[in-house]
Amino acid sequence: MTLVVVGSIALDTVETPTACRENVLGGSAVYFSYAASFFAPVHVVGAVGEDWQADFSRMLSERNVDLSGVRQIPGGKTFRWRGKYHANMNDRETLEVHLNVLEQFDPVLPDSYRGCQWLFLGNASPAVQLRVLEQVRAPRLVVADTMDLWINIQHDELRELLRRIDGLVLNDSEARLLADDDNLVRAGRAVQAMGPRFVVIKKGEHGAMLFGERETYVLPAYPTAEVVDPTGAGDSFAGGLLGWLAMQGELTAATWKQALACGVVVASFVVEDFSLDRLRGLTRADIDRRLDEYRRMVTY
Amino acid sequence: MTLVVVGSIALDTVETPTACRENVLGGSAVYFSYAASFFAPVHVVGAVGEDWQADFSRMLSERNVDLSGVRQIPGGKTFRWRGKYHANMNDRETLEVHLNVLEQFDPVLPDSYRGCQWLFLGNASPAVQLRVLEQVRAPRLVVADTMDLWINIQHDELRELLRRIDGLVLNDSEARLLADDDNLVRAGRAVQAMGPRFVVIKKGEHGAMLFGERETYVLPAYPTAEVVDPTGAGDSFAGGLLGWLAMQGELTAATWKQALACGVVVASFVVEDFSLDRLRGLTRADIDRRLDEYRRMVTY
Repeated sequence: MTLVVVGSIALDTVETPTACRENVLGGSAVYFSYAASFFAPVHVVGAVGEDWQADFSRMLSERNVDLSGVRQIPGGKTFRWRGKYHANMNDRETLEVHLNVLEQFDPVLPDSYRGCQWLFLGNASPAVQLRVLEQVRAPRLVVADTMDLWINIQHDELRELLRRIDGLVLNDSEARLLADDDNLVRAGRAVQAMGPRFVVIKKGEHGAMLFGERETYVLPAYPTAEVVDPTGAGDSFAGGLLGWLAMQGELTAATWKQALACGVVVASFVVEDFSLDRLRGLTRADIDRRLDEYRRMVTY
Repeated sequence: MTLVVVGSIALDTVETPTACRENVLGGSAVYFSYAASFFAPVHVVGAVGEDWQADFSRMLSERNVDLSGVRQIPGGKTFRWRGKYHANMNDRETLEVHLNVLEQFDPVLPDSYRGCQWLFLGNASPAVQLRVLEQVRAPRLVVADTMDLWINIQHDELRELLRRIDGLVLNDSEARLLADDDNLVRAGRAVQAMGPRFVVIKKGEHGAMLFGERETYVLPAYPTAEVVDPTGAGDSFAGGLLGWLAMQGELTAATWKQALACGVVVASFVVEDFSLDRLRGLTRADIDRRLDEYRRMVTY
């Protein structure tokens, strides 16, 4: 049930209407792996700089997160992102991006990861994602994330990637952009027609939709009264989803639905504090309690 | 199980990015009653002008909609609304409003309606809604709708109304305005604290949330690939909801959830065409089929 994530490891500076946190742990691989670790062990492939703190490694390793695929680049600095959320806590603007070690990074999977069954390709250029894909042997499920930048500037590579993965996870505005259709249902099906067997559209505070081979699932978000920092919600959602699938080891309709619920619920915790602060204090029992509560809210 | 709706009867002119329909049947009482009629007989209280067509009455009467509480005002013209939807089919602007017969209308319930058990107060001034409330004897459930205009200009009357009804149905931007809080969960609970036992927040294409005495329910919208005209979706949602409750005659958790699903599903049909055009061709069996489909999409 080996689950591997290839993605960014970041130091984020996040401004919200009421607070600001500087250089906190973030990045797609970090949020994904920490979220998935509640359900299954995770192996991370990524790069950090010399500014990486041993505390970060300890925090991740204390859970089921294996960092042996993370390279520390001599003389390099860790990827940094600075963003600002507007009053509605949904819209955000990127104030600064410093790729740093990610600028030249070409992920190399340790030999022991090449036979992985479950693979998540965090947001990166489709060219890089394709090169990762060439290193794995026969994964059961490959899911990728992407973003508007790649839809705009690496469209051909993205279309090539879409023909070679099982699932794509993207947010609503990206789905509209990629499909050139304002209607999310048509957009989801159009993206699916580009190759992936399933497409998950993330709608932030409005939940998510899955377009599968035979099924369509729609899920509301868990109703969160305190949204402190939405950063990482999408990657945590993907982490909860794939973590559950990897643990179950099967892809039935029932597993899928529960996996989506795991994604929703883990993400609902993440947004209640900055960085991984809310997840750090949680046990699997806390997750399970909210999963039960969520199920009562949506199931009838 | 008498269900009464007091609300507007309108001739709408609707512009969408691809089409325009002039003077089609609309209004809160029309959408509510037609939607509810799939589940229970409905009695409408409202006013129309001399421009009202016998065809409209026939169309409503052919279903379970009783129009004996509708007054035709001599020399008057029916309420008219003209609106335009933007490309995303969610945002709209009102281009023209002509109150016409509604300007002086003070609804009087026929004697036979005063003992009604289920009452929906469609969007109207809270002062008018309060006067209707004084005419009913001992209803089991009174639900009202409102809008930003009344939140702004009849705030005191609205607060008085909120203390005297069981439930309020309003859309997300109205909930934020009334509670002065951007977070919908806090806004829903704040509105509930103003009096009603339950508050339903409608989120258009993103579904709805119910804040009840002991429970919170969150429901995604049915994923609709063809949104032709969203006008009336909110009132149809309320119609499906109250129609189901009235038919069941009980207010258990299971009834509530199914009622919310009925609201979601009926509204999902309404937006597939202009006015009541999509609902007109439907049977209860069509509704039930989509209810089953929706249940499979959300329940796990």
